[in-house]
Amino acid sequence: MVQGKGISQAVIGRLPRYYRYLNTLCNAGTERISSQELSKLMHVTASQIRQDLNHFGGFGQQGYGYNVAYLKEEIAKILGMDTTKHVIVIGAGNLGKALLNYPNFSKNGFSFTGVFDSDPAKVGKSIGTLTVEDVKELPQYLKEHQVDIAVLTVPREGAEANARLLVESGVKAIWNFAHVDLEVPADVQVENVHLADSLMKLSYNYSAARK
Amino acid sequence: MVQGKGISQAVIGRLPRYYRYLNTLCNAGTERISSQELSKLMHVTASQIRQDLNHFGGFGQQGYGYNVAYLKEEIAKILGMDTTKHVIVIGAGNLGKALLNYPNFSKNGFSFTGVFDSDPAKVGKSIGTLTVEDVKELPQYLKEHQVDIAVLTVPREGAEANARLLVESGVKAIWNFAHVDLEVPADVQVENVHLADSLMKLSYNYSAARK
Repeated sequence: MVQGKGISQAVIGRLPRYYRYLNTLCNAGTERISSQELSKLMHVTASQIRQDLNHFGGFGQQGYGYNVAYLKEEIAKILGMDTTKHVIVIGAGNLGKALLNYPNFSKNGFSFTGVFDSDPAKVGKSIGTLTVEDVKELPQYLKEHQVDIAVLTVPREGAEANARLLVESGVKAIWNFAHVDLEVPADVQVENVHLADSLMKLSYNYSAARK
Repeated sequence: MVQGKGISQAVIGRLPRYYRYLNTLCNAGTERISSQELSKLMHVTASQIRQDLNHFGGFGQQGYGYNVAYLKEEIAKILGMDTTKHVIVIGAGNLGKALLNYPNFSKNGFSFTGVFDSDPAKVGKSIGTLTVEDVKELPQYLKEHQVDIAVLTVPREGAEANARLLVESGVKAIWNFAHVDLEVPADVQVENVHLADSLMKLSYNYSAARK
């Protein structure tokens, strides 16, 4: 398989959506689909679909379309979901709990192996099969365990110090929910979910449509 | 003030980030800032900042820069945050609770006025100052109350039926956390937060950087 190096983040950002639709089709028993049919379903042009997938080698056959199960598996591989990712969560509040309890993550190869908090009232409590550990134990934990992805669901104030600790301990991917842009070295991948930004954008579109 | 009609979603998507930085500057007591300084802070080019803000009338003065408090207020107005938005949450799980307890939303003009769930174990429970109501009461609630934004934090299976009910009841903005793309009329604004998509994108970038 051709691995897409230097692919734009816009293309990468669309891959999970392809995966989601292919997964739904697969579960519904659909074996193959043309780019035209997929285009209708996803409300994107067939040419966009072909262009996006061509970055990774194509996968379609003229006159046959796409083999749904195969394409789904290939996109999963591209997204790195064919190998288990060990994920820890820092911040055991409602948002941290929501992510830990999200059933689809583990199905897709993301294995939550630890959860940490600084609040003594939360330390020792169970979330699913995990027990909340004191964030003071995190440096030692990071020495002893492979961590692929760390999730930051802490308030803005604690986020930067936690990010520094993660980076110093060799963690290379941070899923950041804190309402701040983290400063990290170039070899550390950060994906931000800025919920307030998303709500403000909706507020704009709602307000603009009513003028 | 020039209201930006027909502005691209990319520009709109950057406004909340400007707001966030200006708010931090404001809280730190900074009175004015040049586009060069703001550019350094935000890691975007000064020309991008000027271009983005020019869509709405500029706000800067040659040789003076931007008045931080004024620019922050103007961006708040553009984002519709100068009028209170009444927000309800459908789905009182951990994610719904996290959003209801997020202190910054109310500060920014988003007032949570109702929360609904179909689970009898959740109905009647308190979340902050609200009491979880049975989702069966939602149609009646929507008749009697002004709702600007509805937040969908329900599983994928229930999302589409809830979205239909909201649309039929005249709700014009949906903040959708369900892992599905909603089909709504063109005058209904939807902003999606697809958490699994975001994690998959991070997984891709992490995996690609290690090859």
